Amino acid sequence: MGDRLLKKLYVVGIGAGNYEGMTVGAVRALGRVDLIVGYTVYCDLLKPYFPDKEFLSTPMMHEMERCRMALEHAADGKVCAMVSSGDAGIYGMAAPVLALAPAYGVEVEVIVGVTAASSGAALLGAPLTADFAVISLSDLLMPYEVIERRLCAAAQGDFCIVLYNPSSRKRADYLQRACEIVLRTRAPETICGIAQNIGRAGESFRVLSLAELAKTPVDMFTTVFIGNSTTACIGGKMVTPRSPV
Amino acid sequence: MGDRLLKKLYVVGIGAGNYEGMTVGAVRALGRVDLIVGYTVYCDLLKPYFPDKEFLSTPMMHEMERCRMALEHAADGKVCAMVSSGDAGIYGMAAPVLALAPAYGVEVEVIVGVTAASSGAALLGAPLTADFAVISLSDLLMPYEVIERRLCAAAQGDFCIVLYNPSSRKRADYLQRACEIVLRTRAPETICGIAQNIGRAGESFRVLSLAELAKTPVDMFTTVFIGNSTTACIGGKMVTPRSPV
Repeated sequence: MGDRLLKKLYVVGIGAGNYEGMTVGAVRALGRVDLIVGYTVYCDLLKPYFPDKEFLSTPMMHEMERCRMALEHAADGKVCAMVSSGDAGIYGMAAPVLALAPAYGVEVEVIVGVTAASSGAALLGAPLTADFAVISLSDLLMPYEVIERRLCAAAQGDFCIVLYNPSSRKRADYLQRACEIVLRTRAPETICGIAQNIGRAGESFRVLSLAELAKTPVDMFTTVFIGNSTTACIGGKMVTPRSPV
Repeated sequence: MGDRLLKKLYVVGIGAGNYEGMTVGAVRALGRVDLIVGYTVYCDLLKPYFPDKEFLSTPMMHEMERCRMALEHAADGKVCAMVSSGDAGIYGMAAPVLALAPAYGVEVEVIVGVTAASSGAALLGAPLTADFAVISLSDLLMPYEVIERRLCAAAQGDFCIVLYNPSSRKRADYLQRACEIVLRTRAPETICGIAQNIGRAGESFRVLSLAELAKTPVDMFTTVFIGNSTTACIGGKMVTPRSPV
């Protein structure tokens, strides 16, 4: 039992990448481990804060390889963390690690982090004070029909909507298509917001209308917020009231 | 301009209430201020970590009074933080503070915290790895018809669903009613989870079916997770795969 407890893997959400955006629990967990496994970009963000740690990184898209690498090291008895940007539980690596862990006899602990819906909201003001839906526009792992069905449902429910992965080279028009779906049931004047490079160099935000958003090109470092029918622009910030009246 | 910059109010999400669940930014912001304003219960959670600070608390329901109190102190030049549980931007106090702040000539900075959707998910495993909707069942500020409309929409979109405020004395059957709405389009075997007293004494979680959830009484310190059609129970944890296939 003691031996089994030693075989543990921390899956740690590191937030947007700045130290202030990490949870105390994430800082402490990473302080405890010998080895940090992650995507190259996130490892590079962490190295200045954890200069004494061993890092193992793999490039983007090699996610399952990274999971297995971390689990193998943990199974070998190394105190090890696998890092994910934002919150590891939200479009992150917690699920694949949990699914693979039993085969390695490794216990997994997920250490919570701040997801872009929260950090982007704080930058924009308070767009998520009422019910909201989080949707990724990436069709790498999700059929596009499912994404479109969810956009329709979220629009019909008058949810505030947060869009992750709003753009990539192969999906240049996905944000525009998403906006067009929401425009079927929501006014073109609906207050929206974009948050870019949250917690990193070049951090910026912009409040704009849904009609403008539909014509605005964004990059993959952007999180998009579509207000509900009551969202307002107050002092240049995007604010959804807690109550519709 | 220098004077105007001094008139600043931090709105700080403190997460579930344990130190590990706070962001580094929240710890640093609270360390910088002279006065912390908040709901009595949250102030009591913070006092052990910030023993040298002045605290001003009001009981539950006196939220607008609390906002005005914090803004008045900030307008008087006091370095001041208003605290909210979880993330101040998600069903929190950031929106009312931002709405009132211009009248006081106070600049507001929202310091991000971890919301219960994230902290509860980490406790349960990884239920939110795919698109999800967050809905509060409290009809204190939102008409019940709107809540029901959103439950229907989220169910139709096969979203993972997180329910905040699932119960109170006056709304003892709301969770059951919410489950019945989701059961119209989702199987009774759908994997669900409840997270209780996250980050506090008595923290616990349970993975159960949607049919069981509909018959399970919960208290106001509970966050409820309803899986989508692909959510599984793996090693006792609630895990939604990133891909439906």
